[in-house]
Amino acid sequence: MKIALAQQNYNIGDFEGNLVKIKEAIQTAKEDGVDLIVFPELAICGYPPTDRLYFKHFIDHCDNSITELTEISQDIGIIIGAPTERNKVKGQEDIKGKPLYNSAYFISDGSVQNIIHKTLLPTYDIFDEARYFEANSNFEIINFKNKKIALTICEDMWSVIEPYMLYGVSPLEQLVKENPELIINISASPFDYEHANERLEMLKVNANTYKLPIFYVNNVGAQTDIVFDGGSVVVQSDAVIYDQMDYFKEGLRNYDLDDVIAGGNKEDRVNELQKDPSIIPKIREALVLGIRDYFLKTGFKKAIIGLSGGMDSSLTAVLANEALGNENILALILPSEYTSEDSINDANELAKNLGIKILAPSIKELVSNFSNVLDPFFKDKSADVTEQNIQSRIRSLLLMAFSNKFGHILLNTSNKSEIATGYGTLYGDLSGGLAVLGDVYKTQIYEIAKDMNAGKNFIPESVFTKAPTAELSPGQKDSDDLPEYEILDQILLQYIEKHRGVEEIIQMGFDKSVVNDVIKRINTNEHKRYQTPPIIRISPKAFGIGRRMPIVGKY
Amino acid sequence: MKIALAQQNYNIGDFEGNLVKIKEAIQTAKEDGVDLIVFPELAICGYPPTDRLYFKHFIDHCDNSITELTEISQDIGIIIGAPTERNKVKGQEDIKGKPLYNSAYFISDGSVQNIIHKTLLPTYDIFDEARYFEANSNFEIINFKNKKIALTICEDMWSVIEPYMLYGVSPLEQLVKENPELIINISASPFDYEHANERLEMLKVNANTYKLPIFYVNNVGAQTDIVFDGGSVVVQSDAVIYDQMDYFKEGLRNYDLDDVIAGGNKEDRVNELQKDPSIIPKIREALVLGIRDYFLKTGFKKAIIGLSGGMDSSLTAVLANEALGNENILALILPSEYTSEDSINDANELAKNLGIKILAPSIKELVSNFSNVLDPFFKDKSADVTEQNIQSRIRSLLLMAFSNKFGHILLNTSNKSEIATGYGTLYGDLSGGLAVLGDVYKTQIYEIAKDMNAGKNFIPESVFTKAPTAELSPGQKDSDDLPEYEILDQILLQYIEKHRGVEEIIQMGFDKSVVNDVIKRINTNEHKRYQTPPIIRISPKAFGIGRRMPIVGKY
Repeated sequence: MKIALAQQNYNIGDFEGNLVKIKEAIQTAKEDGVDLIVFPELAICGYPPTDRLYFKHFIDHCDNSITELTEISQDIGIIIGAPTERNKVKGQEDIKGKPLYNSAYFISDGSVQNIIHKTLLPTYDIFDEARYFEANSNFEIINFKNKKIALTICEDMWSVIEPYMLYGVSPLEQLVKENPELIINISASPFDYEHANERLEMLKVNANTYKLPIFYVNNVGAQTDIVFDGGSVVVQSDAVIYDQMDYFKEGLRNYDLDDVIAGGNKEDRVNELQKDPSIIPKIREALVLGIRDYFLKTGFKKAIIGLSGGMDSSLTAVLANEALGNENILALILPSEYTSEDSINDANELAKNLGIKILAPSIKELVSNFSNVLDPFFKDKSADVTEQNIQSRIRSLLLMAFSNKFGHILLNTSNKSEIATGYGTLYGDLSGGLAVLGDVYKTQIYEIAKDMNAGKNFIPESVFTKAPTAELSPGQKDSDDLPEYEILDQILLQYIEKHRGVEEIIQMGFDKSVVNDVIKRINTNEHKRYQTPPIIRISPKAFGIGRRMPIVGKY
Repeated sequence: MKIALAQQNYNIGDFEGNLVKIKEAIQTAKEDGVDLIVFPELAICGYPPTDRLYFKHFIDHCDNSITELTEISQDIGIIIGAPTERNKVKGQEDIKGKPLYNSAYFISDGSVQNIIHKTLLPTYDIFDEARYFEANSNFEIINFKNKKIALTICEDMWSVIEPYMLYGVSPLEQLVKENPELIINISASPFDYEHANERLEMLKVNANTYKLPIFYVNNVGAQTDIVFDGGSVVVQSDAVIYDQMDYFKEGLRNYDLDDVIAGGNKEDRVNELQKDPSIIPKIREALVLGIRDYFLKTGFKKAIIGLSGGMDSSLTAVLANEALGNENILALILPSEYTSEDSINDANELAKNLGIKILAPSIKELVSNFSNVLDPFFKDKSADVTEQNIQSRIRSLLLMAFSNKFGHILLNTSNKSEIATGYGTLYGDLSGGLAVLGDVYKTQIYEIAKDMNAGKNFIPESVFTKAPTAELSPGQKDSDDLPEYEILDQILLQYIEKHRGVEEIIQMGFDKSVVNDVIKRINTNEHKRYQTPPIIRISPKAFGIGRRMPIVGKY
């Protein structure tokens, strides 16, 4: 039996566009003599469909797409993800619970043969599946061309490893009772810098446990903040990886089931795959795809970026350049009286290296115009963060004016370390349509920049060596207000991603007053993060929908 | 048996403060000879605790508070909500699943007697309980002073009415098998303009079904965007309401169980309670409590508001005045060349009527300063929304400057109709720490204003009669861009709250092109709402965490 995995990039709610893409893959597969083609989870509507699932017409569209696929299934088997209304499922019409299943449709010979429902519904981090779906409790094997297939959906296979052991039932434990000959899993599994390795480990544990080959197809592409990384994989029954598709790219690849079952002779390739590649190039690819898909799927082409001469805006420009092309990027340099000549030179050099257009309206006059208006009211008060925020907000106002006038999307350049500690100005440098680096710690930013600069030298060397500064007051350095980033980022990681408390972090050997200060900063700045643009997620715990914290409360 | 219901207002994570409040109520109850005192759901830590539940020290604090309560339980029974770690529950140590239960602790005679776990975990709208908790599947009755009590937690009783029939199991169906003599429910049930009536209906259906008296205690107080309205209630076994506590206020009230069981002689009172009071005064109280608690719980005292002379900012000022007192409100009037004399007069009159401080820095100069900077770059382009946004953003910049300099929180004055349609400027009039009216349709705003003006006349009559305008271009009216609010708000309600699609709404009799235009506006403005301040929730579907929509996608 010849099996094709279709690793595709969908647009949420674009039923027509998604179906065109799906049909093209089916056509190609037919021409290649494929018996069974497998598409990702909820491919019909795109993942995550969010509250669109509450709309009847959205579900109707899904049903219509499935019907269209039945009409081209006379000479091929199709497995594809779509939601199912439970009141249409025989025997479920009157059973109370959530109205939908998250399903895998098996279509062949002109009709839907089986609908397999997802059992384990991820409801943590960015996932809200229990919000929409009822969990399956009825296990069945599908039969096709004399093969018995255990068909599962994403999370259904994850509960074999920590920290995903969150369920009291195991779908594969149930399905193997029927002695299937292979496992298929359709997924929408997002990227983070740990997840691709976890995913391979999860697949190997399953192969080892059940001694069955696994065909695993993943979604690819970015949906605003969430990047799906593809990397679909075929695993032999001895847990050796037979083949893996590209990360961050669409693809369609065919496999002969007998070859996979025979397996065993791909040691070199497997060794290469099993090596843990440095994560930095993957983060870079995730960020580039995140930018590219945001623009593609919103129908915008052009980005605007404020260049400060610092590392964050430099790296954002380099990433945007890779994603969108230099002809689509406008950079604004917006010097104030505190901006150094070095910064202006570095920003100009970067723009020249990238070949992006640059404009430089000065904000000095505007700052003093605001002073003239405000001084009569502030007369008794000394300068403080207010005046720094005014500079930052004037810059944002100018960037947004260009954005509005010419139809550019403003890319936000804030990093995770400063967003965590509130070291940024709401409606100022925290503005933008998409935060490119908002899930990247400052120390990681240097690593990515180094990786991207290799052989290109887009970013001037001095940007790597100078001390980080917001340049909002005379001689200001980030380290005046914050711990050194090498320390800060480790504390942030422990608190944000590992959920360790103050006492636990201090016990790891960090300075007590530093830890207390950092954690306090994180907690008292929830109100700023509530209004931060969507952040491309590259870590297991990004700010945004995956991290839900009270704004008001005591810590 | 004498039962006390303690309807209290907690601060999330303020274990010390919450415990002081809880102990005070226990002390009072002891002095009144109460046998059993009942507190709301998750009273120990506050509701909703959100991702704080992932922190071990947070759970440890909960355990410590429970231990402290056991020490004062020698002569009183205490029922109170707190999370439970499942690995500490006998027989559950090795069972996989989510690590916590949402529990009701029954404490007496110096120790925890029973821990009852929540079975039905709301996971819709603002609720994410399946994210944190495992559902209970083991049903037990508690025994106290020779009475058998069916103890339930909030949602456990809701599945008897639509649209809450979302579960395959009914806790009370299980519990009544043990023949309990009363039902107790501890809740954290939020306000919306339909929910209080639904709640009474739900309780009556349960009483009618099980022929048992119900003691229902609810949380009160605002947690950023969510307002809990109290209104705790005792229902007789014949579904007649025996008594109801106040909405939006803390309270402690004692009931003699025998009297409730005898019941039957409170017809007048019951009739009054069962009347559906106009919802407008309740919305007003919810908004006032929302403002007051946001300031109280963040430790801020003073608010700043931009007054335009229009209805939204006028009503926001009146609500803030009621919540915080006029001495704590600073109003800025920020006229531009398009601001009418009438608007300035109305804003001044309102400020005078309320006795709030008013300042009026003009933005005319600043607008022309920005023109000077931008004109060389914009020279070929005619004026458009860019220039309108600049005015709005200059106002925001000035408001935020005062906010930063003097420590005021900026109150956002946008209404739900304009937030829905994107008729507002990001980083301009969409700025603020808290959006007071963001869940209130424009047509409702006039009703609330009328209600609050009765006998006071804070808001000048002309504010009620003039046509709504943003005054960002010459002679501008909202109705130039938007349908009349009477039509618009009805379409918004159908789409946002009822989840009806375009076709369904057109079939209700609305104009096709108007519906298409409005729905398109809603969908293409998700990116603005992503960055809108937290909105006080007063409807069944507010923008914010309760409504999760893709920013990127096709509709």
